[in-house]
Amino acid sequence: MKAVALGGGRGLHATLSALRRLTPDVSAVVTVADDGGSSGRLRRELGLLPPGDLRKALAALAGEDDENSLWATVFQHRFGGTGALAGHAVGNLVLAALLELLDDPVAALGEAARLLGVRGRVLPMCTEPLDIEADVVGLDEDPDAVRRIRGQVAVATTPGRVQRIRLHTAGEPHGAAGGVPKACAAAVTAVLEADVVLLGPGSWFTSVLPHLLVPELHEALIDTAASRIVVLNLVPQPGETAGFSPERHLDVLCEHAPRLRVDAVIADADSVSTPDRLRRAASTLGARLRLDAIASPGARERHDPAALAESLRGAFEAVRSARADG
Amino acid sequence: MKAVALGGGRGLHATLSALRRLTPDVSAVVTVADDGGSSGRLRRELGLLPPGDLRKALAALAGEDDENSLWATVFQHRFGGTGALAGHAVGNLVLAALLELLDDPVAALGEAARLLGVRGRVLPMCTEPLDIEADVVGLDEDPDAVRRIRGQVAVATTPGRVQRIRLHTAGEPHGAAGGVPKACAAAVTAVLEADVVLLGPGSWFTSVLPHLLVPELHEALIDTAASRIVVLNLVPQPGETAGFSPERHLDVLCEHAPRLRVDAVIADADSVSTPDRLRRAASTLGARLRLDAIASPGARERHDPAALAESLRGAFEAVRSARADG
Repeated sequence: MKAVALGGGRGLHATLSALRRLTPDVSAVVTVADDGGSSGRLRRELGLLPPGDLRKALAALAGEDDENSLWATVFQHRFGGTGALAGHAVGNLVLAALLELLDDPVAALGEAARLLGVRGRVLPMCTEPLDIEADVVGLDEDPDAVRRIRGQVAVATTPGRVQRIRLHTAGEPHGAAGGVPKACAAAVTAVLEADVVLLGPGSWFTSVLPHLLVPELHEALIDTAASRIVVLNLVPQPGETAGFSPERHLDVLCEHAPRLRVDAVIADADSVSTPDRLRRAASTLGARLRLDAIASPGARERHDPAALAESLRGAFEAVRSARADG
Repeated sequence: MKAVALGGGRGLHATLSALRRLTPDVSAVVTVADDGGSSGRLRRELGLLPPGDLRKALAALAGEDDENSLWATVFQHRFGGTGALAGHAVGNLVLAALLELLDDPVAALGEAARLLGVRGRVLPMCTEPLDIEADVVGLDEDPDAVRRIRGQVAVATTPGRVQRIRLHTAGEPHGAAGGVPKACAAAVTAVLEADVVLLGPGSWFTSVLPHLLVPELHEALIDTAASRIVVLNLVPQPGETAGFSPERHLDVLCEHAPRLRVDAVIADADSVSTPDRLRRAASTLGARLRLDAIASPGARERHDPAALAESLRGAFEAVRSARADG
């Protein structure tokens, strides 16, 4: 089974950790709009794709023998102290070097994947760095005043209410000549050839929705014959989705991709207080709601990889038999 | 044949590039007193062994298949620009991470060697960073006034005349409790078990002589049954050995290790203006002088690896048959 997971950061790590239990053919399609931390510093200093989310996806799919594990640990290692390197993840620096030397992000990620013994592939959603811009309300005295907030960190942490996002190629406004983000061709192919495509969990506006704002990827998600499954977050994220109900997440998805049909929506049973509303929101997208216990018993804000894998397996089979019946 | 090359920087790169043509069993024993450039910055920021000379030795012995070559290129790649990373060699950063994670420099270098497909081994001469201190004359109006200059960069570039060097464990004076540099045990063993040991070429005071100031390594060099071969530099180095004749290099070696006997001294025929004097200086150490054309035709300040390999092969054979006769 060919599975594609779209996202970034910790949410993508969760789906990849689950998917690798189900199939060796996993492709991660990763957001490239991060402008914070080690990634943001590298992006500004060297003008490269922000490597952090790519690195985390590689680590999530790394092989388990001693050598692969060591290099995955090296990739995830951060320098400490208070100097110029403090906070940089070593894998970000290695990815930066590969991106500079090979001048082809897909090849650069392929080499890093080989070092880490990755089962599957890690692809950027676009081959150039992007900026997220959001329309946000609630930042002014006038509750209806809309402000434009730019940058992943700024959007993710805004105390206001995000209404809508746009993507810009770095430095250029979306829609101006050349400003439309171009999808990574290998990512488009992966989506078109997939048996199943996962959206979410993750920071909704800054890790999940950006994929829908890359026109070729948007079309591929609509055109693919794959089962489309949305995995919801366990808890609202402070900042960009503070106070968002699970159904509001689906509404926002629909607003950004009105033509997108979804086969299944997975949510953690204990994280949903109004399942009927969520079921209705899912059905608006064409999806069946699946409520399972998928939170980690030790840390309820994280997905349990084994439980998420079981839930995904159940969802795939339900979609497959529903399509066969249909 | 087991060969051990002691040195640092470009000189060590030259002997390693030559030795790998003669035997797969090469060990590099590398100085760890660098305090300049990317290495110095990492050393100060993270308190680790300066990785630059270790990295260069790894690259000199790297395997030649596509994957090994790529990683050797990544290791040698330096970030450009004007930011916090400018000038850092990527391999220095990876070695720094391995040193932090494995807490054992020999194991850390072993992992890097595996990645680069190194034929042979790269070992530090000591497992903690060292400082070089030199007695230098000619810095004051009084030509006999001796000043202490501290640090590899300061010594290597001094406009004065270096008379003698000492090693300090970082921060502590040599001779104080705990201040005596402790040799890397694997380096001592490599010297004792070698068939041939090379000293030089390289920055004489800051890359070649430091090995003789580590007591256990000094004794191992005296005790080993290996053939001991000194390879002289092609040109005097501005700074630490400006104006030094080839024979003066041997005199200085003798002053720092009076009990050391040498089997052969190799010099470039065209770089020696007074071969008789050099022959006498070599015989004081017990060595036969061998004059060969070993400079690179294109860049006379560099050794030609193939020519140096041939010269070394000739020297080994001459030593072997002289010992058999004796």
